[in-house]
Amino acid sequence: MKQKKIIYKPIGIIKTPFHDLSGMPIQPAAADGVEGTVILDPIYKEGLRDLEGFSHLILLYHFHQAGQGQLLVKPFLDDKKHGVFATRAPRRPNGIGLSIVKLLEIVENSIQIQNVDILNDTPLLDIKPYIPEFDHPEVERIGWLEGSRNKIRGKKSDDRFVE
Amino acid sequence: MKQKKIIYKPIGIIKTPFHDLSGMPIQPAAADGVEGTVILDPIYKEGLRDLEGFSHLILLYHFHQAGQGQLLVKPFLDDKKHGVFATRAPRRPNGIGLSIVKLLEIVENSIQIQNVDILNDTPLLDIKPYIPEFDHPEVERIGWLEGSRNKIRGKKSDDRFVE
Repeated sequence: MKQKKIIYKPIGIIKTPFHDLSGMPIQPAAADGVEGTVILDPIYKEGLRDLEGFSHLILLYHFHQAGQGQLLVKPFLDDKKHGVFATRAPRRPNGIGLSIVKLLEIVENSIQIQNVDILNDTPLLDIKPYIPEFDHPEVERIGWLEGSRNKIRGKKSDDRFVE
Repeated sequence: MKQKKIIYKPIGIIKTPFHDLSGMPIQPAAADGVEGTVILDPIYKEGLRDLEGFSHLILLYHFHQAGQGQLLVKPFLDDKKHGVFATRAPRRPNGIGLSIVKLLEIVENSIQIQNVDILNDTPLLDIKPYIPEFDHPEVERIGWLEGSRNKIRGKKSDDRFVE
């Protein structure tokens, strides 16, 4: 399957309290209350118009410290190996990360966000508004994670990141 | 703001009934019932292990026919211009598209999907499982789209794509 390479240029950087991979929350649900700042390259500032009306954003970013992609991974929430596309692990063939965060405030080209599970200095690829009508399907099954639902929920009330 | 370019290689292709940009549904919610097929490059097949347990997938793909990115856009659901990051319009600085689709069946390296709002032959960048605990925040505001809620919902019951 021959396809052309795709080249993107980061549009900004994400500043967070997480300076190394250990001790990171695994997803925004586990990062309740943690704040961060998206610093958009000022040349894109006009693209933020009307974004402040949305309570939640989808951030797409590059897993800049994830290393080589793998096809089978042992994710944080299980001790069996799963296909990487059945997980949210960062070592993916294309290392694109996705987090849904709460929007607190926009000042010039800086966006203050909450519920951040992202490593400091992560290159930002895109910002999209979270729109429940598009983004919230009626989910029936969550596969291998079914047995870990309590663990995921438990992470939300984990106090490591709240105080 | 100087940052390195990021290079991705498509991992597959998305086959859909939409062969040109006109008449496309605007999001999966408006594409109720429309089926498509993700054809993953066979070299990544192992990465699909355990994916069939999930009812919904997040597809990330490249808007291959969107052209040059813009900072202000007039989206389908409004006649005012908004910053591109406050919309889901395809002409973005980095043309990464995101759709949440229903998983029907996986056979070898082919994934049959439903509720597809994607152009035929779109290059696929990543597949992630949709996990409500990570991906479903309690949204309070949807900004400029608030007045279009009925229009979005109306699209779901639009019969263009159902029969």
